[in-house]
Amino acid sequence: MASGKPESEQVPPKTPDLSTWYNAICYKAELVSLSPVRGCVVLRPYGYGLWERLQSALDERFKATGHENAYFPLLIPESLLTREAEHVEGFAPEVAWVTQGGTETLSERLAIRPTSEVVIGVMYAQWIQSYRDLPVLINQWANVVRWEKRTRPFLRTLEFLWQEGHTAHATEQEAAAEVQQMLDVYVDVAENICAVPVYKGEKSASERFAGAAHTFSIEGLMPDGRALQAGTSHELGQNFSKAYDITFAAEDQTIQHAWTTSWGMSWRMLGALIMVHGDDRGLRIPPRMAPIEAVIVPIVKAGNDEVALAARSLFKRLKDAGLRVKLDERDLRPGNKYADWEMRGVPLRIELGERDITQGVATLVRRDKAKGEEGGKVVVPLDEMVDRARGILEAIQNNLLARAREHLQSHTFMVAERNEFFRMCRERAGMIDIAWCERPECEAFIKVETSATSRNLRPLEGGPTACVACGEPARVRAYFAQAY
Amino acid sequence: MASGKPESEQVPPKTPDLSTWYNAICYKAELVSLSPVRGCVVLRPYGYGLWERLQSALDERFKATGHENAYFPLLIPESLLTREAEHVEGFAPEVAWVTQGGTETLSERLAIRPTSEVVIGVMYAQWIQSYRDLPVLINQWANVVRWEKRTRPFLRTLEFLWQEGHTAHATEQEAAAEVQQMLDVYVDVAENICAVPVYKGEKSASERFAGAAHTFSIEGLMPDGRALQAGTSHELGQNFSKAYDITFAAEDQTIQHAWTTSWGMSWRMLGALIMVHGDDRGLRIPPRMAPIEAVIVPIVKAGNDEVALAARSLFKRLKDAGLRVKLDERDLRPGNKYADWEMRGVPLRIELGERDITQGVATLVRRDKAKGEEGGKVVVPLDEMVDRARGILEAIQNNLLARAREHLQSHTFMVAERNEFFRMCRERAGMIDIAWCERPECEAFIKVETSATSRNLRPLEGGPTACVACGEPARVRAYFAQAY
Repeated sequence: MASGKPESEQVPPKTPDLSTWYNAICYKAELVSLSPVRGCVVLRPYGYGLWERLQSALDERFKATGHENAYFPLLIPESLLTREAEHVEGFAPEVAWVTQGGTETLSERLAIRPTSEVVIGVMYAQWIQSYRDLPVLINQWANVVRWEKRTRPFLRTLEFLWQEGHTAHATEQEAAAEVQQMLDVYVDVAENICAVPVYKGEKSASERFAGAAHTFSIEGLMPDGRALQAGTSHELGQNFSKAYDITFAAEDQTIQHAWTTSWGMSWRMLGALIMVHGDDRGLRIPPRMAPIEAVIVPIVKAGNDEVALAARSLFKRLKDAGLRVKLDERDLRPGNKYADWEMRGVPLRIELGERDITQGVATLVRRDKAKGEEGGKVVVPLDEMVDRARGILEAIQNNLLARAREHLQSHTFMVAERNEFFRMCRERAGMIDIAWCERPECEAFIKVETSATSRNLRPLEGGPTACVACGEPARVRAYFAQAY
Repeated sequence: MASGKPESEQVPPKTPDLSTWYNAICYKAELVSLSPVRGCVVLRPYGYGLWERLQSALDERFKATGHENAYFPLLIPESLLTREAEHVEGFAPEVAWVTQGGTETLSERLAIRPTSEVVIGVMYAQWIQSYRDLPVLINQWANVVRWEKRTRPFLRTLEFLWQEGHTAHATEQEAAAEVQQMLDVYVDVAENICAVPVYKGEKSASERFAGAAHTFSIEGLMPDGRALQAGTSHELGQNFSKAYDITFAAEDQTIQHAWTTSWGMSWRMLGALIMVHGDDRGLRIPPRMAPIEAVIVPIVKAGNDEVALAARSLFKRLKDAGLRVKLDERDLRPGNKYADWEMRGVPLRIELGERDITQGVATLVRRDKAKGEEGGKVVVPLDEMVDRARGILEAIQNNLLARAREHLQSHTFMVAERNEFFRMCRERAGMIDIAWCERPECEAFIKVETSATSRNLRPLEGGPTACVACGEPARVRAYFAQAY
């Protein structure tokens, strides 16, 4: 943001090649930079500003639901990691190993955490003795490393930032309620903060978290017809409490294994936000996520200080009212500034020129509207600015969500016919909603044929019916799509 | 904090064995747990609550002085790390190395960052082209790893949490001003938030950060007469900009190397707070740092719901007024609860019993006062509670700072005689303030003889004088002490 360089170079259009557009936008809007470390990106200040907004929205909700933050070690001894068989099998191929410390060669390799169930499980075994110690409701903000081959900013990087919640409960029922509660927090943040509508549901057996009894997810739909998983919440059953010996004395004096959960959302959510809302001119950030909600661009002619003074006074007024506002006084042409802030997706631009001041007004330009679209430009009296800006920001938030919801709904297809299902999966038509048998063999066949996988499942309503993909009895309804 | 277990076991007294007391307190107050990973601790929710307070005090000040947060990769390729010769020499013995990723053996080792000058230097070289891009003012919140042999919670662990600021400037003067500004932020947070008074000054050549031109520090004094360095701020000169090629086109069109700085404070600051303020009953947390400022303990007799209701209503009122307050309704004796919250250092306890309610009052007990000390207990009308609690919390903050300042001042000795200097260093009398020659040989000799080192330096005032330690001409005044 400190750069004085205008964003003069053009980005490619969003369609037909979403992927090229996406990468260009992430770098041009200065969200990230490629780093000298293979597979890792640098989160630049503007990108980190987005992350801070997401963090605070989540953290506030975690605390409101009784969770506390804590911090667990980055490094996990290999012998601990291997105790839960399915878990290690799932994660071992992705682990980065520390084998040397200083000049010493270690007798046991240390994994950089790909996730923290293991080390947290070991601690919970120490902390939990009695039913009085339950529930334990802890969240961790952390970096994790997974040895990935390909890199795409936010969506897939070797190291990423996330939060991981880990809880322990006395009963399966309580653990299940926790998992649904946190899934609903993710839905709330995705839809009401990021303006990204999602479907929630359970993952199929083959898409389940390694070591979990049940995995639930939220899934958004990207403009290229691919789904994106943006948060997961797991019932771990007693798998981890048995592997890591998390037991407690129950009220009836019996010794029982705790029921544990984990749930996580990463900076991947930002990738969804970028793809869902951006356009050919750059990012479009929903106001509640915007590091800068409004930018004031004074249109200053040489020798006229009046405009500069008015702009500073307006800046101060909006800032004092609690708006996240920026005053752009760089020595650049207004047009270059407009392009710059459009690229960065600032929801509202406030233009202030000589004639505006004479008339006691400013011109507000909404980033969510296309050029020339009705309501995109509004002239507002300066003394009504705080309330009007607030109202328009609210309208932008709602409009971005409504448009994204319209896209999701118009690209969700209830399909009952086999050939149509396979064709739509192949063509990435969107979320293909079918009655499904839930068999791994059926899912594997669909994947080989179409590259699509089940995104998540929900109960089947109505009488017995057949799986649209294979004709066996259906057990659930499922969204299928190719996925990020 | 969820634990229903009373803290019945006693901790050892704070004197004479501060170290045993310190370790016991850190674990008993549930700030940390030992982890299954050698050299690493778990920061438990109550300890993380302290860290969150420190983070927010620092982050607010960083932002107010124009800094933005960003995030850089955890892993640094060995070839990058070795480019600044002094830097790598200083850190190489402490680096943890990743040599395997998944099933692959890496062709080049990756260091887990011990600090991030290197990777940030590489990025700044890309981002900075022109004087218009300067200054770059970035902070990072991160975990770092240094391969330490011994572990002590907060003071020395293999992995720790910290912030590291990294800035680049067009001139040496600007960089120097930045370094002093951030040092002053550290003084402000140490003294006015943590209530830990410190001396600020420049480090000697042998205590300087590896690769820095000048290192400045803040140093507190612990009750055992040892100093503790709680924050550092470095002028890196052009060392890193030359090693990592951070150049810019100046206004006069010449290509110049930027002047860079870095500055960091870690969770070590919490160790200082614990040692400076704690007593035989446990922690004493300054209110501005306290995750819980006040705890309400209802003294409930069986069958009397009135007290419980009054306590809940008081809790709501204090919480709504913005106080960080906790209501302890656990099924435990009040005495056990008192001991519990005293151990955790909650600044203010509000006792509410049947008779109090009849009289419309509650009893406030200050954690900063010894048992029986004047002003330690105050009876306050319930309807004045918000203002009175605020006032008393302010008084506690001031009292803890005043006591700590009194200790620092009364244990700072201006010494002019050689034998007295060596004796006092050996005996850990406190901060021993001498006229000093600044020669590394002299410092090495003092260290061998007494285990003390120079903590930091400031200008020598008055006429020429001799080094108290060796008799050569003095160049500065210096605080000497044994150090953590």
